[in-house]
Amino acid sequence: MAMVPVIQIGVGGVGRELVGQVLGARAALEARYGFRLEYLALADSAGALASGSPLPEERILAAMRAKAAGGNLAASPAGRAIQSWDELVPDGPCIVVDVTAASGHEVPLADAISGGARVVLANKKPLSATWSSFVELTFGAATRYEATVGAGLPVIATLQGLLDSGDQVTRIEAAMSGTLGYLCSELEAGVPLSAAVRAAHQLGYTEPDPRDDLSGADVARKALILARTCGLEWELANIPAEPWFPPTLAGVSRDTFMARLEDLDAPFAARVAAAKAQGAALRYVATITPEGASVGLRAVPADHPLASLRGPDNLFSFTTARYAERPLVVRGPGAGQAATAAGVLADIVATAREM
Amino acid sequence: MAMVPVIQIGVGGVGRELVGQVLGARAALEARYGFRLEYLALADSAGALASGSPLPEERILAAMRAKAAGGNLAASPAGRAIQSWDELVPDGPCIVVDVTAASGHEVPLADAISGGARVVLANKKPLSATWSSFVELTFGAATRYEATVGAGLPVIATLQGLLDSGDQVTRIEAAMSGTLGYLCSELEAGVPLSAAVRAAHQLGYTEPDPRDDLSGADVARKALILARTCGLEWELANIPAEPWFPPTLAGVSRDTFMARLEDLDAPFAARVAAAKAQGAALRYVATITPEGASVGLRAVPADHPLASLRGPDNLFSFTTARYAERPLVVRGPGAGQAATAAGVLADIVATAREM
Repeated sequence: MAMVPVIQIGVGGVGRELVGQVLGARAALEARYGFRLEYLALADSAGALASGSPLPEERILAAMRAKAAGGNLAASPAGRAIQSWDELVPDGPCIVVDVTAASGHEVPLADAISGGARVVLANKKPLSATWSSFVELTFGAATRYEATVGAGLPVIATLQGLLDSGDQVTRIEAAMSGTLGYLCSELEAGVPLSAAVRAAHQLGYTEPDPRDDLSGADVARKALILARTCGLEWELANIPAEPWFPPTLAGVSRDTFMARLEDLDAPFAARVAAAKAQGAALRYVATITPEGASVGLRAVPADHPLASLRGPDNLFSFTTARYAERPLVVRGPGAGQAATAAGVLADIVATAREM
Repeated sequence: MAMVPVIQIGVGGVGRELVGQVLGARAALEARYGFRLEYLALADSAGALASGSPLPEERILAAMRAKAAGGNLAASPAGRAIQSWDELVPDGPCIVVDVTAASGHEVPLADAISGGARVVLANKKPLSATWSSFVELTFGAATRYEATVGAGLPVIATLQGLLDSGDQVTRIEAAMSGTLGYLCSELEAGVPLSAAVRAAHQLGYTEPDPRDDLSGADVARKALILARTCGLEWELANIPAEPWFPPTLAGVSRDTFMARLEDLDAPFAARVAAAKAQGAALRYVATITPEGASVGLRAVPADHPLASLRGPDNLFSFTTARYAERPLVVRGPGAGQAATAAGVLADIVATAREM
């Protein structure tokens, strides 16, 4: 039985869900593919669980329980403090999994690849930093990153399959924020924007500061990853995102922003009404073509696949040389810890099959 | 540069398109993945192009031109007659690609796997024969078969990704006949069934005898492949398909059948009207659950993803433990030589990456 060593960085919600999925799927993967996934190390920002050999399942589970209860790995039984997670990566073949949201991992991840590792990312940051670090991480297909876009939906795999078979992508249209999709549905149902944002905030659909969603920056980051996968040598500055709030509300405190949400109600109600008058639906859409990209609110015609979207579902539409008249479309829930972890695990399995 | 030997069985429309795509994508695949796809042999039912070493590109292209002009491989320059394609398969690692529609390939394909080959199929027959031959071909993930269902759409890869990550599939709903989808759209537009079938026949959308589509047998075969991928130990008899014509028209000649198509107009018009009266749309749908499968015309509610289908597009909806409230949906053109060949090539690439 071939042993595939795994180093996992990040044991937050998605990370702990991933640990459960890996341990749960291990026996079936052994039977189907003849390899065994073994955790060599698990790390959070403060510490690690690592001993240089495969970690016993019960020790991993105990550390995950401690972590879920608010502890950290350094303090868990068999845990230890570390300077940085890259000291945990062994030389030779292994899979380094980054399920953090941290910046600055590009260099140590590229170093790990140089040492013989393969990388799987749910973390968008390493691929949305500079073009040159994107190239370094993805050269020779060393990195898989399905979960960076659309969580567990098969978006990157589909796009890569099109490219590998020599197809030319002429247009990608995508609704890839569950939060903003939810707001669009609420607006369409006649809810004022202020009430919709407050409800989403209370339901935990938004980041602690809702402007982190409403700025469109997260969507732009995902659009950049899609564009770069197509070989477009862009930086984040090439993808301007239209925010849901005016510049005057960008610099104020969160509490001030939340208190002034009503300022946005009338302009948004007017946009919804204008879209409806044309028989169109308002959606927050990223459009990527070889000529350029845009990210913003768009009125899409009623017969457009994006118009049929409801609530937090994501949708990705690929128009290519071969799918020219009618696009290839992938749609479904594009967020959530279980779906994100499943996207990461599918990448781990595909990588392990190649090792 | 690692060399990946390829043996291709079938050089009809899809086969010749595949040859063009493989040769066209070769340089990019070399640069990205570091392997080179080399044809060791190409075979049709009468002969082969094979010399025991990689075939030169110009020789392949000349044979494809001769074949497209109505010739056969045995008669092309450097071609020769063969008893059976399995004599072309070398011992050791190679990829055997079956893009025929022939029966009886299960045993020689399984033999090739025993000898160290991996298999890629567009041919549905080997996987829709007995359950035991399905198991033999797919054991250890030795065979990929994306193009058997939905042509180039990522259907099998998506399903396998869900299963690999430990998800449980509770329901698959699929519209996977472009021909029958076209007929549904025409019926909905008020065209009598007889006129729609005759038009589809003249446009080349149907098999030479349209009953080969209208029987639903091809949809049942695809449904069987999806079900078996989920681990359901079914035979074709477990998936009854509702035909579009009564038993009295099953045994008559093709000409008699075509002459009597008007008999079907009134009953179909009544079904369309009944569906419309409920606000529903008529679709030819395969439904697969662990408890059983059905294939037939169904009135789907207007807000169901299947209702938004137009014309020959395919749609696959996966409801699982993780995608429980809202399904994961893949949609797009599910037929055509270019799309089918692209699905095969994506499988060849994924297989070569593992070799």
